[in-house]
Amino acid sequence: FHRALEPRRDMRAEVIRIPTGGPADISGLTKLADLGIDPAKVRAVIGKTEGNGCVNDFSRDLAARAWTEAVGGEVLTVMSGGTEGVLSPHVTLLVNCDDDPGAPVGALAIGVNQSRVIEPEHLGRRAQVEAVRDSVIDACQAALIPLEEVELALVKCPLLTTGDTYGSMGRSRAASALGIGLALGEIRDDQIEAALAGNFEIWSSVASASSGIEVNSCHVVILGHSAHARGRLRASHTVMKDAIDAESVMKVLADIRERGGEIVQVFAKAEPDPTGSIRGRRHTMLTDSDLAPTRHARAAVAGLLAGLVGETAIYVSGGAEHQGPPGGGPVTIVWRLPS
Amino acid sequence: FHRALEPRRDMRAEVIRIPTGGPADISGLTKLADLGIDPAKVRAVIGKTEGNGCVNDFSRDLAARAWTEAVGGEVLTVMSGGTEGVLSPHVTLLVNCDDDPGAPVGALAIGVNQSRVIEPEHLGRRAQVEAVRDSVIDACQAALIPLEEVELALVKCPLLTTGDTYGSMGRSRAASALGIGLALGEIRDDQIEAALAGNFEIWSSVASASSGIEVNSCHVVILGHSAHARGRLRASHTVMKDAIDAESVMKVLADIRERGGEIVQVFAKAEPDPTGSIRGRRHTMLTDSDLAPTRHARAAVAGLLAGLVGETAIYVSGGAEHQGPPGGGPVTIVWRLPS
Amino acid sequence: FHRALEPRRDMRAEVIRIPTGGPADISGLTKLADLGIDPAKVRAVIGKTEGNGCVNDFSRDLAARAWTEAVGGEVLTVMSGGTEGVLSPHVTLLVNCDDDPGAPVGALAIGVNQSRVIEPEHLGRRAQVEAVRDSVIDACQAALIPLEEVELALVKCPLLTTGDTYGSMGRSRAASALGIGLALGEIRDDQIEAALAGNFEIWSSVASASSGIEVNSCHVVILGHSAHARGRLRASHTVMKDAIDAESVMKVLADIRERGGEIVQVFAKAEPDPTGSIRGRRHTMLTDSDLAPTRHARAAVAGLLAGLVGETAIYVSGGAEHQGPPGGGPVTIVWRLPS
Amino acid sequence: FHRALEPRRDMRAEVIRIPTGGPADISGLTKLADLGIDPAKVRAVIGKTEGNGCVNDFSRDLAARAWTEAVGGEVLTVMSGGTEGVLSPHVTLLVNCDDDPGAPVGALAIGVNQSRVIEPEHLGRRAQVEAVRDSVIDACQAALIPLEEVELALVKCPLLTTGDTYGSMGRSRAASALGIGLALGEIRDDQIEAALAGNFEIWSSVASASSGIEVNSCHVVILGHSAHARGRLRASHTVMKDAIDAESVMKVLADIRERGGEIVQVFAKAEPDPTGSIRGRRHTMLTDSDLAPTRHARAAVAGLLAGLVGETAIYVSGGAEHQGPPGGGPVTIVWRLPS
Repeated sequence: FHRALEPRRDMRAEVIRIPTGGPADISGLTKLADLGIDPAKVRAVIGKTEGNGCVNDFSRDLAARAWTEAVGGEVLTVMSGGTEGVLSPHVTLLVNCDDDPGAPVGALAIGVNQSRVIEPEHLGRRAQVEAVRDSVIDACQAALIPLEEVELALVKCPLLTTGDTYGSMGRSRAASALGIGLALGEIRDDQIEAALAGNFEIWSSVASASSGIEVNSCHVVILGHSAHARGRLRASHTVMKDAIDAESVMKVLADIRERGGEIVQVFAKAEPDPTGSIRGRRHTMLTDSDLAPTRHARAAVAGLLAGLVGETAIYVSGGAEHQGPPGGGPVTIVWRLPS
Repeated sequence: FHRALEPRRDMRAEVIRIPTGGPADISGLTKLADLGIDPAKVRAVIGKTEGNGCVNDFSRDLAARAWTEAVGGEVLTVMSGGTEGVLSPHVTLLVNCDDDPGAPVGALAIGVNQSRVIEPEHLGRRAQVEAVRDSVIDACQAALIPLEEVELALVKCPLLTTGDTYGSMGRSRAASALGIGLALGEIRDDQIEAALAGNFEIWSSVASASSGIEVNSCHVVILGHSAHARGRLRASHTVMKDAIDAESVMKVLADIRERGGEIVQVFAKAEPDPTGSIRGRRHTMLTDSDLAPTRHARAAVAGLLAGLVGETAIYVSGGAEHQGPPGGGPVTIVWRLPS
Repeated sequence: FHRALEPRRDMRAEVIRIPTGGPADISGLTKLADLGIDPAKVRAVIGKTEGNGCVNDFSRDLAARAWTEAVGGEVLTVMSGGTEGVLSPHVTLLVNCDDDPGAPVGALAIGVNQSRVIEPEHLGRRAQVEAVRDSVIDACQAALIPLEEVELALVKCPLLTTGDTYGSMGRSRAASALGIGLALGEIRDDQIEAALAGNFEIWSSVASASSGIEVNSCHVVILGHSAHARGRLRASHTVMKDAIDAESVMKVLADIRERGGEIVQVFAKAEPDPTGSIRGRRHTMLTDSDLAPTRHARAAVAGLLAGLVGETAIYVSGGAEHQGPPGGGPVTIVWRLPS
Repeated sequence: FHRALEPRRDMRAEVIRIPTGGPADISGLTKLADLGIDPAKVRAVIGKTEGNGCVNDFSRDLAARAWTEAVGGEVLTVMSGGTEGVLSPHVTLLVNCDDDPGAPVGALAIGVNQSRVIEPEHLGRRAQVEAVRDSVIDACQAALIPLEEVELALVKCPLLTTGDTYGSMGRSRAASALGIGLALGEIRDDQIEAALAGNFEIWSSVASASSGIEVNSCHVVILGHSAHARGRLRASHTVMKDAIDAESVMKVLADIRERGGEIVQVFAKAEPDPTGSIRGRRHTMLTDSDLAPTRHARAAVAGLLAGLVGETAIYVSGGAEHQGPPGGGPVTIVWRLPS
């Protein structure tokens, strides 16, 4: 991809939320013009689209095509389907902007990358883990984000279109999350085998992986603090230890509030607890033959997070294998320092 | 029904949550024996069962039959289908117990009643409103609960089995809620016509109505404070003004915590905002042809409430017409005073 | 639209079925090249795409964009979602070809047209009926197809995106079908009012209307015999009187077989019987809250038709208001005379 | 179970279809009284109930309880969920009746049996295969039905309630079908290992297995001709080689018609072709995350069969592992000789 190990003046990230009226609605791009932002500066489009978020969700593809065409250039899309419950369809644009001269350094910067094509026989296996690991490391280097300053590592990864298609979505997310954890030093290489064999106690705290029929390589998008970016955007992450762990999130929100921060966007992963219960109480997300487990999980966790932050156009994605502990998931909150 | 205008020694309510392993699982009844409670004292069984909560949800009927047979006598069942997201299938038993001599009066008491059969042509109309109104008033009188002390008024009501069956669920809930509001003085008789014509700004703050194919009359269950009941259970209600209104609930929780209270159970209603948006952001609950609107709403609101109270075996029911403001809904929290 | 009241040499229709690997798969266009056909000659693309066929089916939009871009020019798309059961996703291209000199006249010709934009307040009302009527008449005139020779009249029409969205799909299909019936003399103008008020005994025998979020006007596509087209394609239509009326279809198939015909494509409409029963037996298509009625109906009728013709890449569309009798629907079979 | 190797006067089967108004509707039992039949003579109740036919289908349990209670005694129930498309909810009673003196021998007789409890660790394994094999052999012996005269072998078998619950339904059906094939000599013991490992080319032509959460043993119900039963009921079976194989069925129907037979009931199995295509055309039953594969298959095959026999209250059950060839399934037609 693009290697820019020299600091540039435009490494500062801006994070812009745009509500959409449908998957192909790109009318909100006018907001960029209003802000005086050149569309060519958009590095990534992170979307919540209103399909089922599962195998036959074509809203992702429709949105990815519309936004790629609208923004042009080398923009990466990470479209996550499923706006169950209160979730509101929207995209979040990650834009490179010139430094804000009156602001401190250590602002959020954007890393992007695209792995090689993942062949079906490599999907969910070590080859995918390593492809993602390398892509994450390169993305961070190019953006001058130290690995320990990564607050969010999004990956959009492929799925199998024959055989156990729904199951392949999970295996692809799993391999992507492990690649992220490996890159960031959260997971050791000698843990990968056990993790791929189903040990979900091995996890990353900033990974957010989402599968889709619309990609055949892995799209990597990183948000992290950089000493070379001057601006007011910051991010904080936590990990929900289960799907109702409001406490962890409220603690981060209190920290941000204490620092006078204004919340800009929330990125979270959700999943049904694989044991079939939450804090000892049975849930039915895994035995409901009418409604996919990830749809259940997104609806519930988004209901909680939207309530806590008072905003429904947030990014909550379903299926959190190796992304936070089993049944839980990472949450990254982007916020703005007071001026 | 049973009129007992004389105070009795056993007017105190006990509220007992029993997790279930399936709709017909009544094995948890042994808990009553463990507590030394006679099953004949159970006045109502309020359940969350794991069907779709819509027209063809047979988990409600299965549970109602199993519990009626298990408990026997004149017990009333209110089975609400749908345990989307984190919700855990369970029943809540409302039991009449002897006064707790060391506790203050003003404890929760239980009113129950059953209306006459609601004919299909009366469903969702004034005749149903008035049948529910009368049943609520009688239930309160019999239980010596002043109308202004009602904290929760549950109604299980019929639906139409031909024509617009899903729509009839909403109209039946609407008429039941209006009957409750009328009984409790929250709604005036001259507002009923407008309300039935679709003015959802007319609402009760303690009504919780749920429709089901398994009843042909309205089952009424009341929880309220009575000067004739001595015990430690209390209830507090609030109204969520929309589906993400965490603040209202957190305020009540803070009040209870301040009084040293221990939370026993939560009863809430949820619905998709009929305008199609929440705080100005579009939601997709009304345009998802794969997933019924009430399923979306239950999942989201239950996700929020379960997070706030740290418990998933709570009662969240979908479809909140005239139950709280449009898009919002009443929440009643039962709690126990410290001893 | 394009008026060509002069006979042209290229009025003959060719009907080409192309299986698709996904909604955006246009790779089958190479088949045109193999056949020596200029893509610019494609007048209409009729597709079955693999979404839910209801309100939030984005596979239609994705397919319509991909094919419009691929074929270019003034091509009309009619994308019908829903490939339940055995149905196989595919498109059928209607192409104008030069006369086949060795064949008889009276071959199938293609009429296409596009109505003005249908405003939301006109949707499902007389204004839409008349817009479709005029478009159908113009399309037939331009293609030199006498009205009595129309064998199939497809319309793709808009829906409402707020309020009762699923219901609006039916009202839009209804108005379109009535417009077709009016144009073709099957329905009298003085019947329209009763029909719009819900009298479904008023119907067309060749109408096939399908709603979608991806259009705001009505796309009209006609197949009918023309004395000015020389070729071997013919079409025969019948009407299934209910969803299991195999007999009507077998009769047409026997006729075609007797004439040595080879079946090229099948176009059919399906719907759940609005009375809730078929030949006196209750069905559950209208009370299943997990699965939309039109999905049920498509699966069943397509299962029957695919069995009868031995082919699953056929066009079966759900929702047949005023398209054949209540619970039934029109079936048009395109076939080729032996050479 | 009950061994009656002595011929009895009441070995003749009567097969009585009763439409139901809901899973718990047993009002049709009055039909028995009208026919002068003692309910104690009902040996089996075979039902199609209107749930989703998958893991969380509680309509089966509700129906099984209602009919067991209504009929009493040792009656076996086989409740199959899922009445997609045109299918009409109903039960079929298999009743032992006294010989019809004016009719020939060789009439249908009924074998019933119940295996030992299948522990979760034996589910889908050889232990279940052998339990079903033994139960089938015993049932045939007790009913004096030669193994080669079995026309239908129904099994209702358990599923797993944790882990891969939907997948366990298929493995349980598979083991049951193999047990039937082994009992009837259609499958050799040395083929079982390969079959359990996924070779679906090993199959029975009369097996019909259905899983449900409501049983923990296997219920076996046999219909076959017996030299000791005098009456007019006969059965004929065929195998659909794929989901659109109308020809095989039409051939049997023509045979029956030629013999002057009147069709009494149809029993069939259906499944999505595991290759993902039917006669070379892709289907989407395995990639639809909103609708379970068995629901798709039932709707389609029932649409075809109902059309061919002109009746929607037929038994079509989903999931046909080792029941007919991959993608196809057995069909048994019960019919009555003319008098």
